[in-house]
Amino acid sequence: MTVRAGIIGATGAVGQRLIQLLEPHPEFEIAALTASESSAGKSYRDASKWRINMPIPESIAEMTVQATDPDSVPDDVDIIFSSLPSSVGEQVESEFCEEGYVVSSNSSNSRTADDVPLTVPEINADHIDLLEVQRDNRGWDGALVKNPNCSTITMVPPLAALEEAFGLERITVSTLQAVSGAGYSGVTSMEIIDNAIPHIGGEENKMETESRKLLGEFDGAEIHWHDAQVDASCNRIPTLDGHLENVWTDTAEDVDAEAAAEAMREYPTLDLHSSPDQLVHVFEEPERPQPRLDRDRENGMAIAAGGLQETEAGLQFNCLAHNTMRGAAGASVLNGELLLEKGYL
Amino acid sequence: MTVRAGIIGATGAVGQRLIQLLEPHPEFEIAALTASESSAGKSYRDASKWRINMPIPESIAEMTVQATDPDSVPDDVDIIFSSLPSSVGEQVESEFCEEGYVVSSNSSNSRTADDVPLTVPEINADHIDLLEVQRDNRGWDGALVKNPNCSTITMVPPLAALEEAFGLERITVSTLQAVSGAGYSGVTSMEIIDNAIPHIGGEENKMETESRKLLGEFDGAEIHWHDAQVDASCNRIPTLDGHLENVWTDTAEDVDAEAAAEAMREYPTLDLHSSPDQLVHVFEEPERPQPRLDRDRENGMAIAAGGLQETEAGLQFNCLAHNTMRGAAGASVLNGELLLEKGYL
Amino acid sequence: MTVRAGIIGATGAVGQRLIQLLEPHPEFEIAALTASESSAGKSYRDASKWRINMPIPESIAEMTVQATDPDSVPDDVDIIFSSLPSSVGEQVESEFCEEGYVVSSNSSNSRTADDVPLTVPEINADHIDLLEVQRDNRGWDGALVKNPNCSTITMVPPLAALEEAFGLERITVSTLQAVSGAGYSGVTSMEIIDNAIPHIGGEENKMETESRKLLGEFDGAEIHWHDAQVDASCNRIPTLDGHLENVWTDTAEDVDAEAAAEAMREYPTLDLHSSPDQLVHVFEEPERPQPRLDRDRENGMAIAAGGLQETEAGLQFNCLAHNTMRGAAGASVLNGELLLEKGYL
Amino acid sequence: MTVRAGIIGATGAVGQRLIQLLEPHPEFEIAALTASESSAGKSYRDASKWRINMPIPESIAEMTVQATDPDSVPDDVDIIFSSLPSSVGEQVESEFCEEGYVVSSNSSNSRTADDVPLTVPEINADHIDLLEVQRDNRGWDGALVKNPNCSTITMVPPLAALEEAFGLERITVSTLQAVSGAGYSGVTSMEIIDNAIPHIGGEENKMETESRKLLGEFDGAEIHWHDAQVDASCNRIPTLDGHLENVWTDTAEDVDAEAAAEAMREYPTLDLHSSPDQLVHVFEEPERPQPRLDRDRENGMAIAAGGLQETEAGLQFNCLAHNTMRGAAGASVLNGELLLEKGYL
Repeated sequence: MTVRAGIIGATGAVGQRLIQLLEPHPEFEIAALTASESSAGKSYRDASKWRINMPIPESIAEMTVQATDPDSVPDDVDIIFSSLPSSVGEQVESEFCEEGYVVSSNSSNSRTADDVPLTVPEINADHIDLLEVQRDNRGWDGALVKNPNCSTITMVPPLAALEEAFGLERITVSTLQAVSGAGYSGVTSMEIIDNAIPHIGGEENKMETESRKLLGEFDGAEIHWHDAQVDASCNRIPTLDGHLENVWTDTAEDVDAEAAAEAMREYPTLDLHSSPDQLVHVFEEPERPQPRLDRDRENGMAIAAGGLQETEAGLQFNCLAHNTMRGAAGASVLNGELLLEKGYL
Repeated sequence: MTVRAGIIGATGAVGQRLIQLLEPHPEFEIAALTASESSAGKSYRDASKWRINMPIPESIAEMTVQATDPDSVPDDVDIIFSSLPSSVGEQVESEFCEEGYVVSSNSSNSRTADDVPLTVPEINADHIDLLEVQRDNRGWDGALVKNPNCSTITMVPPLAALEEAFGLERITVSTLQAVSGAGYSGVTSMEIIDNAIPHIGGEENKMETESRKLLGEFDGAEIHWHDAQVDASCNRIPTLDGHLENVWTDTAEDVDAEAAAEAMREYPTLDLHSSPDQLVHVFEEPERPQPRLDRDRENGMAIAAGGLQETEAGLQFNCLAHNTMRGAAGASVLNGELLLEKGYL
Repeated sequence: MTVRAGIIGATGAVGQRLIQLLEPHPEFEIAALTASESSAGKSYRDASKWRINMPIPESIAEMTVQATDPDSVPDDVDIIFSSLPSSVGEQVESEFCEEGYVVSSNSSNSRTADDVPLTVPEINADHIDLLEVQRDNRGWDGALVKNPNCSTITMVPPLAALEEAFGLERITVSTLQAVSGAGYSGVTSMEIIDNAIPHIGGEENKMETESRKLLGEFDGAEIHWHDAQVDASCNRIPTLDGHLENVWTDTAEDVDAEAAAEAMREYPTLDLHSSPDQLVHVFEEPERPQPRLDRDRENGMAIAAGGLQETEAGLQFNCLAHNTMRGAAGASVLNGELLLEKGYL
Repeated sequence: MTVRAGIIGATGAVGQRLIQLLEPHPEFEIAALTASESSAGKSYRDASKWRINMPIPESIAEMTVQATDPDSVPDDVDIIFSSLPSSVGEQVESEFCEEGYVVSSNSSNSRTADDVPLTVPEINADHIDLLEVQRDNRGWDGALVKNPNCSTITMVPPLAALEEAFGLERITVSTLQAVSGAGYSGVTSMEIIDNAIPHIGGEENKMETESRKLLGEFDGAEIHWHDAQVDASCNRIPTLDGHLENVWTDTAEDVDAEAAAEAMREYPTLDLHSSPDQLVHVFEEPERPQPRLDRDRENGMAIAAGGLQETEAGLQFNCLAHNTMRGAAGASVLNGELLLEKGYL
């Protein structure tokens, strides 16, 4: 028995990745695709400008794209994967939830709302039960679950391992982010060739807040955010896919770099379909991980780490993840798998 | 009266930039060019693979390249500009100093030696008098002055302004460095297109030590290094010229971002020929400075800063400099100008 | 006495280059800047997103941008430089011409119209007198002159030299075009990094028609197009500025590569302000010209050629020009200088 | 029963691709790896700098690399895949052939020798029997088969289709070649970022000669080269993998673009393991094929074509292939499969 899934915002960069992941998925089947009014009624082939280096799956190419509206989606769809622009996400996702749909969303709206679970299943699967609070609050038959920003997801797994092993007091992070994170047209070639841009609107705040919520504790009623000081500086560089990050941590206990590597390697994964066999791949070679060489590990769902060095105050390290797989489409699909396992579908 | 100058290691990437700067220089005239044995005897045009986007100056193209050896350089040359690989720099530069030449060197050897001045003239011109100690120690008629690593030079001017205004206790820096910093053949295209490399051998240590020496105090006998904790993480990105850096500082006194910008803007420049009119250009636009747009300010000799934000512990900001101009060739020329002004030539 | 000039479409990529060229120009002074309705009333600093790697000239930054309309431009403006999108150029340029303005336009509309001179002054300055025919036909007090497409301009000077020396019967050309040719937002980074695009809409046809008009004969009444067969294939590559082209020619007479190089080198330039001292720079090194190394020769107004080789049917060679300087803004300014010299202003 | 294979020159860029293809191959098993003297005795993991975006196959990583010498390779190895630099290929490959090994070589030496088959199996499999002549001439127990240059392979399949349908009289080709074609260190980042290089040493000649040999006729005794005039111009661009080419053909008979597309699509493939299901994928969209989007079709073994347009003299079109797969390692493996099928192993 597969779960019938709709993708809203199906023609964008993340929408295309969602199709790439869901079309062969053993647990989900794609039953509806939506996009903006101007695309409604067209075949997916005509409505999308497909830019992934494999052909559009045949079964998808001829599907008719609907307008993004609960009425356009069949009632027997069980889950909605959303990659809407955040400007429209807030309202549209609420409408779907009111109509009883369970929404796994990659859009940035509502991520830090008190009653919205923000989950990376391997890290804080227990936060999903905040949905009970959400339903009480909002009176929805449906439900809204969020995954964090791509740059946050990249650093949280190794940080979670360090938190368990040594306790985190302060986190400083600099990002080298790929252009695909801004969507297909987000960064022009004239902006980025032979260049770098030391600013991504709102991104620093996302990293500083979302990471503390993810690493926080859920007591059955609310999430108590982690109280580490987090400072982020975000940069765009001329790389297609894969966010690379330099991280410094001040820890409560003294860190040994070997023990830190061990903690990362042994951090447990889940047996959800999209979870990697090993959550954090730790490299010994100081020049790794690198975006082009390491972003595709375990179908783009593994986190890579390297460059672990003790500092006076704790540990510095580098980490990397595929921003549109582990950091976006894959994150939403993984949350969908968690919802299924936990009985929310 | 111009000073006769020799360039040793004249065919490399920094050597070419030295020619670009010294050929039209009002105070220096190029009197000798040296390179490896295999180039000796050739015209500079034939010996070098010129890669700057202007033609080789005509007066230089036909000069004969000599072997890198004090005996090959005319005695009436007063100053040697050196951009040798560090592996050979140590020995060769000493030989020139013993023979009485004053050497302004960009090579990384000896930068942290107790009796070698490491100077960025606008920041610590007074350190130059460490040469008295050097001559006592080494018995040289010549003298050896160093400029720091390109990535260090980029951050030190804004840091010096913050040190004066607020006091620095801790510095954390992440770099996004251009490929020209590794020399012409240092980074292959297959390594860096659609990629980034989170490691540059030895670079982190250079930033951590050289910045503390530069910000240190010279008491007439020795340099007392600044005692701030410095943690650096260095990355190579697909940019041709211009190192961009994200910096966090913990300060002794509370920082106000406006006051910090003011302190940077007002940090004094010098009236040396190559000094910029304003040492630190501070941008209000959060997405600036950017390598391609801002590396050429004031002939590549200005430092650009931006993104100033208060943090819990101090200030975070971004900075940028042209790595082969302000960060290498221009830095050596500026040290030559300082040596001239201070009477060492 | 300077000529008062207006720039319509002043905020775009070519508009910015026009400002860069006209602000220090000895014969023109910028008296009006126009852009779309949404920019009207703003300062140029606020209306434009300035992306050239030098600051906006101070005298320009605070000028008020007007709507693109003859009524918004002072009557004492003598010449209008136009870089409008071709979709609006046709109508708007006609309105200016009717109101008596002389328009030097880079827009692609009307380039092949029978009574519109399409000129590259060093090549076909005599075609400018087609304006007499134009005024008869259209009853305009003003006048409309066009420069060709950037990719056409690049190859025409060396072709004109070959036409004179050997006679041209057939021309085949493949282009490697820079992203700036599509305007600031024309090519996204996701489209072009680690990629190339073998199609630029309408470009092949422009090269095939415009080159034949430029190489044609003006008999005082009409232009007789050159009858060579021209086949073009146009490609976009990940280069910022500078179009590189591979050209094959079948010639009427046997070609000697040395004589061809001589013909290119000796092709006469003009003494207009923006004309280069030498129109075609011919390289002996087979790997030149290259976009980044050679696009800036003579302030971006020289054509570079190289790789000349005899073939069975004629000659093959490569050529290069800066597409937004020689190929667009500089081409329009040069036409303005020609109009001034010929007494049309 | 698998065939035991050795790879000589196993650590280079093509050598790594050979391992990627042969390790999972059903008909071959990797039994020996050789490299230069300095690597002999090391594990493959230590001897190679692995740069493919998948881990080194475990079974290969610990194999011991041997010196490149027939004595270092076990006698029961049946086939040698060679990707040596051409400077050493001539002599070393001959030594292996004398010792009785069958060599499938990607090296450029000997490709146009009268008694060496140069084959692309889908195009001219019958040329393989030139080996009988080779053995008579050279007295070898072994045999030497070559695949053509990567840029030649890319255009020959669509050309072969046009030859059959319309007859070819003249071929003009411009290439946009990826940096991987020059080997891992062949093109530095400073050479190619924001640039293009209109020259690749020897490449034009390879395309002009190899294509005519491939399209030639074998009469049982010798190859009669095709007599079309071929003119090539070769360019390096900032793309990692995938050579894109613009081709113009003059044909004996009138061309219809639709019929040409049909001829390409229906050109027969083979049922060798590495042959694609369809040899030439023809795109209708004028902006395709593109290197990043289309180089990986059918495991990198398909040729992509597009942009077919009739010209006065024939047809112009674009084509693309993965240069280190279809154009190098995959080409050698395919020749190995042909040798096996034809009974030479």
